[in-house]
Amino acid sequence: MDYYSNQISRLIEEFSCLPGIGAKSAARLAFHLIHMPEADVKRLADTMVEARQKVRYCKVCCTLTDSELCPICSSTQRDHKTVMVVENTRDLAAYEKTGKYNGVYHVLHGAISPMIGIGPEDIKLKELISRLADDVEEVIIATNSSLEGETTAMYISKLIKPIGVKVTRIASGVPVGGDLEYIDEVTLLRALDGRTEL
Amino acid sequence: MDYYSNQISRLIEEFSCLPGIGAKSAARLAFHLIHMPEADVKRLADTMVEARQKVRYCKVCCTLTDSELCPICSSTQRDHKTVMVVENTRDLAAYEKTGKYNGVYHVLHGAISPMIGIGPEDIKLKELISRLADDVEEVIIATNSSLEGETTAMYISKLIKPIGVKVTRIASGVPVGGDLEYIDEVTLLRALDGRTEL
Repeated sequence: MDYYSNQISRLIEEFSCLPGIGAKSAARLAFHLIHMPEADVKRLADTMVEARQKVRYCKVCCTLTDSELCPICSSTQRDHKTVMVVENTRDLAAYEKTGKYNGVYHVLHGAISPMIGIGPEDIKLKELISRLADDVEEVIIATNSSLEGETTAMYISKLIKPIGVKVTRIASGVPVGGDLEYIDEVTLLRALDGRTEL
Repeated sequence: MDYYSNQISRLIEEFSCLPGIGAKSAARLAFHLIHMPEADVKRLADTMVEARQKVRYCKVCCTLTDSELCPICSSTQRDHKTVMVVENTRDLAAYEKTGKYNGVYHVLHGAISPMIGIGPEDIKLKELISRLADDVEEVIIATNSSLEGETTAMYISKLIKPIGVKVTRIASGVPVGGDLEYIDEVTLLRALDGRTEL
């Protein structure tokens, strides 16, 4: 690509490595950046480096945070006896947005997937088990409803039940506003199995 | 968003300001970054700042480059008597990828658009006119086939013709591989008007 300058080509290449950004979006981003005020580019770059340097795992729940304990784990308003297990911080954020869950979380940072070589030791499971000594009454497994999420849920429940802690799984079924016509068969059967009395 | 750390929230906010990146993609990018090796984040940040600082306009054709003259303007292999006018560097790159155009370029960095307040003085038109004294024989207008691109083409042709330089416009018609059935009426009429004898 000798029709772009070296700097631009390198920038496009770097952007293309980010998830969800193809060659065209990378070029678009690069040219946008070139036309941004220099101070803004500097600030964006600094924010990136600073975030990467300062963000770490919460000592208790393993979510991403910038202090030793995340705001949820250090809150006295939350019910620390109920722990919801999620795959990543975005899933935690999704439940926090509902504003209705008052327990705490545990972030696994992944799900067991033998297909791509992710085993139980590659996710934050050890950290979950060591928390259970601290007076936890219920573990709600909220991993995704994918093959990996279900595998992880099964694995965790088999691991925790013998300890004597109650283990539950979030319901799987037809999403609110979902049209039955467009919903896959597995979900329809799950919804049927999980029916509740009115 | 107190369920993310400050750093992550700020990073997501910064990413959301980039073109084509919504709230969800911004979060995805931010979390990807947090999990990247620190050295890679540093390199990406440096590339961004360096590109913004070093890239400037070519003295002759106004394309983005890192030296005084871009590789095309400084090449002795190119025909400097033929100047193709494009809206931006990506359009230049598109023609360069064909490998068949041997003239030089002029990059306007925009198109005339009274709707959003971009007038002839806001694009690199003055620079184009001042080049015409240098023995230019033909100006090929390759602005987009949009309302703004057409307006700009008309404006430039009216400006240049009195100087006595040949002005041409790239053909507009059915794209190669295009199915007539799915092509809009304006394009179909353009293709008819621009028909050539076989």
